[in-house]
Amino acid sequence: MRKNKISHNVILRLPRYLRYLEDLHNSGTVRISSGELGRLMGITASQIRQDLSCFGEFGQQGYGYNVEMLIKEVSEILGTNNERRTIVIGAGNLGRAIIGKFPFEQYGFRLTEAFDLSETVVGQEIFGLTVRHVDELEARIGQNPPDIAVLTMSPDSTDPIANRLVELGVRGIWNFTNVDINIDNPNVIVENLHFSDSLLTLSYYMTHKMKDTDEN
Amino acid sequence: MRKNKISHNVILRLPRYLRYLEDLHNSGTVRISSGELGRLMGITASQIRQDLSCFGEFGQQGYGYNVEMLIKEVSEILGTNNERRTIVIGAGNLGRAIIGKFPFEQYGFRLTEAFDLSETVVGQEIFGLTVRHVDELEARIGQNPPDIAVLTMSPDSTDPIANRLVELGVRGIWNFTNVDINIDNPNVIVENLHFSDSLLTLSYYMTHKMKDTDEN
Repeated sequence: MRKNKISHNVILRLPRYLRYLEDLHNSGTVRISSGELGRLMGITASQIRQDLSCFGEFGQQGYGYNVEMLIKEVSEILGTNNERRTIVIGAGNLGRAIIGKFPFEQYGFRLTEAFDLSETVVGQEIFGLTVRHVDELEARIGQNPPDIAVLTMSPDSTDPIANRLVELGVRGIWNFTNVDINIDNPNVIVENLHFSDSLLTLSYYMTHKMKDTDEN
Repeated sequence: MRKNKISHNVILRLPRYLRYLEDLHNSGTVRISSGELGRLMGITASQIRQDLSCFGEFGQQGYGYNVEMLIKEVSEILGTNNERRTIVIGAGNLGRAIIGKFPFEQYGFRLTEAFDLSETVVGQEIFGLTVRHVDELEARIGQNPPDIAVLTMSPDSTDPIANRLVELGVRGIWNFTNVDINIDNPNVIVENLHFSDSLLTLSYYMTHKMKDTDEN
């Protein structure tokens, strides 16, 4: 289901649609118009219709969207209907927060292993996962690599560890290390979550006293 | 220094420029051309020149950019030359990770207080900050409110706490709670860092096996 090139900003809005639709579904809403959904989300109805039209025909003139059906469709677009086995590298405070609190299962992810570089953490049990040393990466995941690795370790060793993971067959990296990763494999998708980028964006808008909502 | 309306995507790239420029500066680079910087960052030279031109005249034909000067200028655009007093609400694993590891000072932020809702955490000392109960918010920050609040608590109480903070005079909210915040004050800037949005973006690109780089 290769689609036409879709703008990155449309992709960035899809998870947000999913969040709102799930809240609506949980509160018992069966259907919603693009106008109502837009008011909730603070965007225009036409933006919603335009975004969704990139992926096919959803909703019905005069009826709106069936919430449950649209959740299913957006989930499929986002690929959360496939199980993705996931490991975490870095079991410090951030790694623990993510292992313990992030609702991986809700989005089709399954946490299978946790690794760390520090002997003081290795061997500990964290929310049901025993932390292994990164030296054991090859031994533990070499035969059956996970789909995704979450990097929550300190940034010093990001590139060598990321490249070992890719060598082992990992195809997606969720990177919290605050440094960009250099990988020479076009089949690997890296998603960076650099906290500093986000805080500096906040700083910018506070300095200039305006939030530009033109995110197309 | 009110500027023309600048695209959100340009703003999003500024922190990334700053990161690369600081790395260059730390490794002793004095000047760099837009071409070299672009190769490092994986974007075109003309994109860099175009982005920076939104904010004034930087660099010199044939010389490139003076790295140290450009750091200063980008920092000024991002507002990190002003000290911003910052509090954290939520001293669980995520709050601890941010309090202990995030380099606030590097970007002009100063952590002054930490709060939590749980009696088991209140009173603990975390990286030099004593955790207070959120019931003490008004008493502790009412006279001299911080500029920014970082929300790392569980999502249940996000709206009431955010509105109390705004009432107290907080003007920037860095929101990690994974729910959107409803605030009726146009002077308050909210920056959301929803982990799930980021993971679902990764999932999308893994599913569709392409990373769209058209992020203008």
